[in-house]
Amino acid sequence: MSARAGIVVTGTEVLTGRVRDANGPWLADRLLELGIELAHITICGDRPEDMAAQLGFLREQGVDIAITSGGLGPTADDLTMEVVARFAGRSLHHDAEIERKIAAVVGPLTRRWRNVDPEAVAAGTRKQAQVPEGAAVLDPVGTAPGAVVPPAGSDGPTVVVLPGPPRELQAMWPAAVATPEFHAATGGHTSYRQQTLRLFGMPESEIAETLRVAERDVRGFGELEITTCLRRAEVEVVTRYEPAAAPAWHALLQLISGRHADTLFSTDGTTIDEQVAKLLDGRRIGLAESCTGGLMAARLTELPGSSGYVLGGVVSYSNDAKTSLLGVDPALIERVGAVSPEVADAMADGALARFGADTAVGITGVAGPGGGTEAKPVGYVCICVKTADGRVLARDPRLPGDRTEIRDRSTTVAMHMLRRLLLGG
Amino acid sequence: MSARAGIVVTGTEVLTGRVRDANGPWLADRLLELGIELAHITICGDRPEDMAAQLGFLREQGVDIAITSGGLGPTADDLTMEVVARFAGRSLHHDAEIERKIAAVVGPLTRRWRNVDPEAVAAGTRKQAQVPEGAAVLDPVGTAPGAVVPPAGSDGPTVVVLPGPPRELQAMWPAAVATPEFHAATGGHTSYRQQTLRLFGMPESEIAETLRVAERDVRGFGELEITTCLRRAEVEVVTRYEPAAAPAWHALLQLISGRHADTLFSTDGTTIDEQVAKLLDGRRIGLAESCTGGLMAARLTELPGSSGYVLGGVVSYSNDAKTSLLGVDPALIERVGAVSPEVADAMADGALARFGADTAVGITGVAGPGGGTEAKPVGYVCICVKTADGRVLARDPRLPGDRTEIRDRSTTVAMHMLRRLLLGG
Repeated sequence: MSARAGIVVTGTEVLTGRVRDANGPWLADRLLELGIELAHITICGDRPEDMAAQLGFLREQGVDIAITSGGLGPTADDLTMEVVARFAGRSLHHDAEIERKIAAVVGPLTRRWRNVDPEAVAAGTRKQAQVPEGAAVLDPVGTAPGAVVPPAGSDGPTVVVLPGPPRELQAMWPAAVATPEFHAATGGHTSYRQQTLRLFGMPESEIAETLRVAERDVRGFGELEITTCLRRAEVEVVTRYEPAAAPAWHALLQLISGRHADTLFSTDGTTIDEQVAKLLDGRRIGLAESCTGGLMAARLTELPGSSGYVLGGVVSYSNDAKTSLLGVDPALIERVGAVSPEVADAMADGALARFGADTAVGITGVAGPGGGTEAKPVGYVCICVKTADGRVLARDPRLPGDRTEIRDRSTTVAMHMLRRLLLGG
Repeated sequence: MSARAGIVVTGTEVLTGRVRDANGPWLADRLLELGIELAHITICGDRPEDMAAQLGFLREQGVDIAITSGGLGPTADDLTMEVVARFAGRSLHHDAEIERKIAAVVGPLTRRWRNVDPEAVAAGTRKQAQVPEGAAVLDPVGTAPGAVVPPAGSDGPTVVVLPGPPRELQAMWPAAVATPEFHAATGGHTSYRQQTLRLFGMPESEIAETLRVAERDVRGFGELEITTCLRRAEVEVVTRYEPAAAPAWHALLQLISGRHADTLFSTDGTTIDEQVAKLLDGRRIGLAESCTGGLMAARLTELPGSSGYVLGGVVSYSNDAKTSLLGVDPALIERVGAVSPEVADAMADGALARFGADTAVGITGVAGPGGGTEAKPVGYVCICVKTADGRVLARDPRLPGDRTEIRDRSTTVAMHMLRRLLLGG
């Protein structure tokens, strides 16, 4: 029986969607690594009664550990320590050592700004040095300390109180896990394995049918916890199981590999971005983009080390730029239109030549919402991938979605075309 | 007293963070427009007992309406309709008309793919046509119908069942709101107003101090619900209030405008992106990017209509590209280094010249994680914004954060520099 956990994310800015929560997902991965089962994530605003209700819900659900993120800042709407102390049946006290540590962090930060009121800063620091008695206090990474707070009685989960900014939360996590309080609450858990498969170029219903076949044919299928989802136009299949169910996992992998050989591109958890990065190692790529407006170059340069193989890119949003920076013949644009397989091809040629690259991608399309015609509707995108030694792959799909989705999916299609061309498939 | 709502997001892929939830935030905005107060968002995996527990929690919290998203797909882990029917005390029945409507949507979709098993598709369609008796059924937008399900007894919230894909959920929402069942559950609500202020170039503690002053000096301050947060290096202050509290809001606005005149850039809800787009109207901009790898061009072309003023950009990741595509003197790079205010300036000049632009941005920096030195550490970024008629603004901040944050913040700083230069401030 593994330990169970719940996460409480606080902050009206998260509840109302002005800020996207990155902490729930990150903590979910960490819990999985520890073999702790995550049952619930709840999000509330800055109202203490709503946060208290959510902690109460997690207690009723019998979780062993509750993790809160956010609400530790210097402003008056940051009430987490107070709510958690009350929940755990503990009082708040002022921790002078922690106040000194916070002041040591806040001081240099404050000097970066002009005209900061020192009294405002001191008031914030005093507030942040209030922690529950009997809790393990975690040193601040930013300006806010965290805490691991066991229940004062025997009932209820131990609460891990972490700051909202993802960098601070992530840096503080190891210290939280290392406390005896954390260990006491979660000790004796079993470990899980997790495997991720990724497929590209088929609808989700196909994998659903394969899972129905697996339910019939794979021995021990019931021991596998499988979820499927569509993500950036790829189908992702994630399987979680206890070590004893490994044979069932291998049988499932064999079944999926057999039925979806042409669309299954990742069985080891690697993403298409990582695979393309590896294939580009030792090569030199140049990009020529129109409708994606730089997203393809930004995607390729997202990974550290990409300066080893990305020479650069041209965003040729205007026809003039296609001609002056990529050498696309204006007569060609006149004849077949800026959004055409021919122009995508000429853009890729231009990128090869102008950057002295050995690999290039040309993308031109109609991202919308305006600019579509019957022959070239919104979502029509022409992509050409080629190498200096003459290998070419061209596609002109009509992609679904709105402007943002069409731009993003165009880069996904281009990534998979790059993979295919560079693998020589 | 306004109606209260809760949102239940289902899906192991969301719980475990492989997919980010976009539905909670979107629904939060819609509820606000309707004057319905959102109290809780909860996220669970594909386990029916966890979803039932979360619905039970919302019932205990006395919400009038619970909205679920996800779990309506054709696969076996999609159990929402079943769980909601049981929660509402209603049985599932097969709806033949809905099955025909689903089949009409699924048919053409299926023909886009090769080798699709028609029996798999039919099984999925049959499953998706199971709906709770006594509920208002919402026609499918994708392949899944939704429902508005009142409780069979008098107790508990009405449940609005919506699909997981954001596009489908958003398209189905008006039909859900239009049902008599929705109206009966939420009728008689008060309306709220919401105002957003945005500031750039100061720490969050400054606004906290201003709010402490406001608490003392602004009459009716207690009637304002204020949240502050840091977002993409900007401070956002959102204030919600009932119409009667408008004078307090205006007093607060005056106080903030007075204390933060040099950093307050938006009082009408507009984003920096929208403001820059407006300022660029009638102009022609070219970009020259190194460490941001195309993100600045991608950000400027994210808004529809940007082809009217974005000519294009060069991502000059290699020094050769800086020289060949932007005309940066290699001797300059040799002398002062590729990451330097001088090279950022020369890149902007190159963008002006090569694109025939009247406005240009040059960005070069150390995004990390490698490549930092003592003089030019990770996060050091040089940005130059200039116009063809000779106005120039240059900055070389050291930005905090990891590679992704440094790249993103660089574009935010550049956006604010563009705004300042084009406003002539």
